[in-house]
Amino acid sequence: MKKFRTRVKETLDPGFGTRYQQDAKRLINKDGTFNVIRKGVGFSSRNVYQDLIKMSWTRFFFATMLLIFSLNTIFSLIYMGIGMEDIEGEIRGQGFFHNFSQAFYFSFQTFTTVGYGRLSPVGDLSSFVAAIEAMVGLMCFALVTGLLYGRFSRPNISLEYSKNVLVSPYKDGWALMFRIANRRQSLLMNMKASVSLTFKEATNGEMMRRYFVLNLERKNILFFPLSWTIVHPIDSESPFYEIDLNTINDYDLEIMIQMEGFDETFGNVVHSRYSYLPSEIEIGAKFQPAFKTDKKGNVILDMDDLHIFDKVPYQQSEMGNQKLNADRNIENQKEK
Amino acid sequence: MKKFRTRVKETLDPGFGTRYQQDAKRLINKDGTFNVIRKGVGFSSRNVYQDLIKMSWTRFFFATMLLIFSLNTIFSLIYMGIGMEDIEGEIRGQGFFHNFSQAFYFSFQTFTTVGYGRLSPVGDLSSFVAAIEAMVGLMCFALVTGLLYGRFSRPNISLEYSKNVLVSPYKDGWALMFRIANRRQSLLMNMKASVSLTFKEATNGEMMRRYFVLNLERKNILFFPLSWTIVHPIDSESPFYEIDLNTINDYDLEIMIQMEGFDETFGNVVHSRYSYLPSEIEIGAKFQPAFKTDKKGNVILDMDDLHIFDKVPYQQSEMGNQKLNADRNIENQKEK
Amino acid sequence: MKKFRTRVKETLDPGFGTRYQQDAKRLINKDGTFNVIRKGVGFSSRNVYQDLIKMSWTRFFFATMLLIFSLNTIFSLIYMGIGMEDIEGEIRGQGFFHNFSQAFYFSFQTFTTVGYGRLSPVGDLSSFVAAIEAMVGLMCFALVTGLLYGRFSRPNISLEYSKNVLVSPYKDGWALMFRIANRRQSLLMNMKASVSLTFKEATNGEMMRRYFVLNLERKNILFFPLSWTIVHPIDSESPFYEIDLNTINDYDLEIMIQMEGFDETFGNVVHSRYSYLPSEIEIGAKFQPAFKTDKKGNVILDMDDLHIFDKVPYQQSEMGNQKLNADRNIENQKEK
Amino acid sequence: MKKFRTRVKETLDPGFGTRYQQDAKRLINKDGTFNVIRKGVGFSSRNVYQDLIKMSWTRFFFATMLLIFSLNTIFSLIYMGIGMEDIEGEIRGQGFFHNFSQAFYFSFQTFTTVGYGRLSPVGDLSSFVAAIEAMVGLMCFALVTGLLYGRFSRPNISLEYSKNVLVSPYKDGWALMFRIANRRQSLLMNMKASVSLTFKEATNGEMMRRYFVLNLERKNILFFPLSWTIVHPIDSESPFYEIDLNTINDYDLEIMIQMEGFDETFGNVVHSRYSYLPSEIEIGAKFQPAFKTDKKGNVILDMDDLHIFDKVPYQQSEMGNQKLNADRNIENQKEK
Repeated sequence: MKKFRTRVKETLDPGFGTRYQQDAKRLINKDGTFNVIRKGVGFSSRNVYQDLIKMSWTRFFFATMLLIFSLNTIFSLIYMGIGMEDIEGEIRGQGFFHNFSQAFYFSFQTFTTVGYGRLSPVGDLSSFVAAIEAMVGLMCFALVTGLLYGRFSRPNISLEYSKNVLVSPYKDGWALMFRIANRRQSLLMNMKASVSLTFKEATNGEMMRRYFVLNLERKNILFFPLSWTIVHPIDSESPFYEIDLNTINDYDLEIMIQMEGFDETFGNVVHSRYSYLPSEIEIGAKFQPAFKTDKKGNVILDMDDLHIFDKVPYQQSEMGNQKLNADRNIENQKEK
Repeated sequence: MKKFRTRVKETLDPGFGTRYQQDAKRLINKDGTFNVIRKGVGFSSRNVYQDLIKMSWTRFFFATMLLIFSLNTIFSLIYMGIGMEDIEGEIRGQGFFHNFSQAFYFSFQTFTTVGYGRLSPVGDLSSFVAAIEAMVGLMCFALVTGLLYGRFSRPNISLEYSKNVLVSPYKDGWALMFRIANRRQSLLMNMKASVSLTFKEATNGEMMRRYFVLNLERKNILFFPLSWTIVHPIDSESPFYEIDLNTINDYDLEIMIQMEGFDETFGNVVHSRYSYLPSEIEIGAKFQPAFKTDKKGNVILDMDDLHIFDKVPYQQSEMGNQKLNADRNIENQKEK
Repeated sequence: MKKFRTRVKETLDPGFGTRYQQDAKRLINKDGTFNVIRKGVGFSSRNVYQDLIKMSWTRFFFATMLLIFSLNTIFSLIYMGIGMEDIEGEIRGQGFFHNFSQAFYFSFQTFTTVGYGRLSPVGDLSSFVAAIEAMVGLMCFALVTGLLYGRFSRPNISLEYSKNVLVSPYKDGWALMFRIANRRQSLLMNMKASVSLTFKEATNGEMMRRYFVLNLERKNILFFPLSWTIVHPIDSESPFYEIDLNTINDYDLEIMIQMEGFDETFGNVVHSRYSYLPSEIEIGAKFQPAFKTDKKGNVILDMDDLHIFDKVPYQQSEMGNQKLNADRNIENQKEK
Repeated sequence: MKKFRTRVKETLDPGFGTRYQQDAKRLINKDGTFNVIRKGVGFSSRNVYQDLIKMSWTRFFFATMLLIFSLNTIFSLIYMGIGMEDIEGEIRGQGFFHNFSQAFYFSFQTFTTVGYGRLSPVGDLSSFVAAIEAMVGLMCFALVTGLLYGRFSRPNISLEYSKNVLVSPYKDGWALMFRIANRRQSLLMNMKASVSLTFKEATNGEMMRRYFVLNLERKNILFFPLSWTIVHPIDSESPFYEIDLNTINDYDLEIMIQMEGFDETFGNVVHSRYSYLPSEIEIGAKFQPAFKTDKKGNVILDMDDLHIFDKVPYQQSEMGNQKLNADRNIENQKEK
């Protein structure tokens, strides 16, 4: 296996360290999280809150239901312990389930503060417990109010990344290309991309992680209403320059992406991470246009079109993947 | 048609791309949005939330009413399905509408947790459904609480832009001028303006969008209590320099404006976009003062005065629209 | 009256403009607001919200009470219009006030969703109105919830400024000095001060505002747990250099202060503005220490001590207020 | 006692001042607060709110309970003052406690708006007071809703700092090292560390605080999923260079740390402060690895492992603690 060329400047690790064990998973998951498990943290109300904020709506729904029904069950059992004769208006009957259902309805009518009054507490103890329950109920809904708002107002970003990184024709050589689009209605501004490459390599017998920043044709755009194709030219400054890309599956590499933008709706800076593995690199391919204009002059951007590409024949040049440093310099000057 | 001069440095597209189809609408709408329709996004609770946050108060009011009345209608029908004899205290009667109205009042008294108790559930099933409804009702109002707060606290900006861009006398030449003012009571600080010009032009038979940044006399102000006149001098660095402005309606151009500021009330950076088309450019005109001082020493800023201008005779000089590069340099030095 | 020397570099106006009328008030009020009245803005829900967020607690309390009592009065009158016989359980009686009070209690029990049920609606119309009122009530309290949170969580800053600007001995000359302290428990960080001078002067017969930035001995501090004395040395770069400070009341000047910091509790950048008029400048005075250490080693910072100073004899040197440019340069080098 | 060498550039104080009295405590507490007591601030609703936001959950729980029970007690006494005959449905009895408990249950049923109706107000006065109480109750829970949300959504950071600062072998000399890890699930990015040294020293008979910034091997990392060891090399630019570290307990010094990062969950910049005293400096020690990989490829980060180190023999070199300026320069070049 050919080693990655080292003429290109290596980068400091972005915080992962260089001494990963060989069986460690990918660094960045598809959802932007890291494969790290924290221990010894103890209980933290904040972590519970953040879990509740980040979990799916289905899980959140069931967690809320579970909490409310558990609390009501506990209070129902307390009322039964106090004695059903302390609750006025219930339909007298026998058996645990009859009494429990009566206590449960009373409990729910108290917890939600609906308090019809057909069932109402008469004894001192049940009156006191009912007062506590009504308060607990209100606290619960106060919490739910905060959680609902927290879930919606959390500044985050939802980008659609193209399924593949393409090795596409670029000027008289090749370039790595992938595309992103905003899945949200919110306006994103001042988008910045930073792409880096990491791979494991045996150095002096020890497995080490190495990191390279990949140069981009363009690092940022002001507005982001459409799709954005991020381009890394495989020129002499690229770590891919002397690699035979047909053998790319042999390398234990990962292309790590970090996007930053300003979400205008929330007035907040948002970040997105993503990573591609070798199996997701498509050698010799070209993206089809991602958007079209309809008859009314609106531009239509379809998320499904983001992934579509055509195959093109790939052939590595003799001198490496690209010879266009000169061209690139001109491009750079234009950009400045 | 005279082409725009190309001696002036062209700018990279701000994210719109250069290959727009000929029938595409303007890039930036008057309300700062873009003419892009997203497809393939699927349902997203976040997008629904953002729509609810951004819609008008009238639409928000009707959407809320619709939700609440629909839920109550559904619960009313469920109670009728269970049987009206399960609700104690209702006025016995016949006919769908009589029963529905009784069920509906009971439903509303449960949903809002007002629970007078004249109507109250007695059967197991109706008691259980009522418990669920009270919970749903509280959740609804939790959501409305969050939405109301979200609508009010969303950091945004409301600027009044003068209806026209004027070509006004400036030093011994001409300049493009437009004015803005803050429609809100909130204090805006550190305002920054960036103005660019885009137009479509046939290049080698293909329609291409081209972009130019317009130099400004002054790019930012620290405080923004009054109006601000943004001035682009038509000097030799301006793309308008060699254009006969009387023929400006012949060009398919758009003047795009991006304002940024810090809203002190929300402690947040806010943005505003706007654009002018050729029909909104007034050749040979001068703004009247936008504010006056009353007898108590208060400065009065009337939004309606922002648009008022006087006509002045316009004549292009021989050498282009302005010859004052020398003067401008002096001005620049003063600014530094 | 001696004119301000113009050897010192003038500054661009910070957004107030230069052509103020002679009878205009001070630019920045003691509470940091500007003397500008906006007209032609029309009704804006956002402005109403911001007023409610910014008003005093007393006014907010009365505004809330007024809203709730008005709504209840309106609903009471509607119930009376429908007819009191539609409300079950009320104490039958005669006279407008008897009926109104019964309707009002029913209305309040509905509005707050307490719904005891002694009073409850029986007719269709009153049941429907009661359903609407319960909903309106919940909306009201949703709004109040948001307003209360908005009032508390609005990122702002409360600085205590010393009552006077002192002309104090500084090295072998004089300096303008004032002090600030944080009135809040919240931690302020990365404080930045910018101080400028504005005055009106007849230039070619026309009254013009002129602006000067005042150099500071130190422009920022990292932490702000104690008081901070902001020092403007009156050296040859100061607009006060050649002024006889004893005649300072003759000038129509204003010292404008803008402070910026990061409030750690809210995680937000906050700003404060303040201004001093000539009558608040104390010529020849020195601040007493603003904090002391108690026996337990705690540092005690008393807001009242911030204003205390001792008089010192002031005498202007021949060559201007200060001759210490050389010293200052050394100081500057140390700071870099 | 050997003085700290002064060849190293001293730093301006970060806001604490230089004239601390000798009996003053440490500058930064372990929880990141400062030892400053504010006086003359007066009552401020904002400070009360911030206290409620920052206090522990236990204290918050008791404060809330205290508020609710106090209000209910006050309203109960008012109802008793009005006369128990004004409350319909209460169980007639004698004695203060019997009546108080009835009034208290009625009060709670009103305050929580549960309003069963078995107890309900009949007289004008009790009806009016009950209306007010229901409103007060709703306001209370509105406040609690805001407080709960405020407590959870306050942007803050919880870092685990290693218990000791180690003097560890580093290249061919020594370095100060400590470690941090994120105790939260939230993602921290763009972490920046700044470390400074302060100590008291008699200068011309007067005790003065002096400040030095400590150079770091690396000042920031992009991602922070694992632990981060912050390293200050004791080279010729270090104030520790000529100090015999075995005598470090003789100095009245404090190592002050300020961390800054971007919390992605809250979309906010967060800060953490910490400080080490001489007794926490471990001379001659080396950290054990802080994380390991499990069989599934997950990286396990245990907070308890953060503090574990092995002892290594420490010996100061003749020329000072380190001679590796040359090496350091190379390192720096690599970093750039």
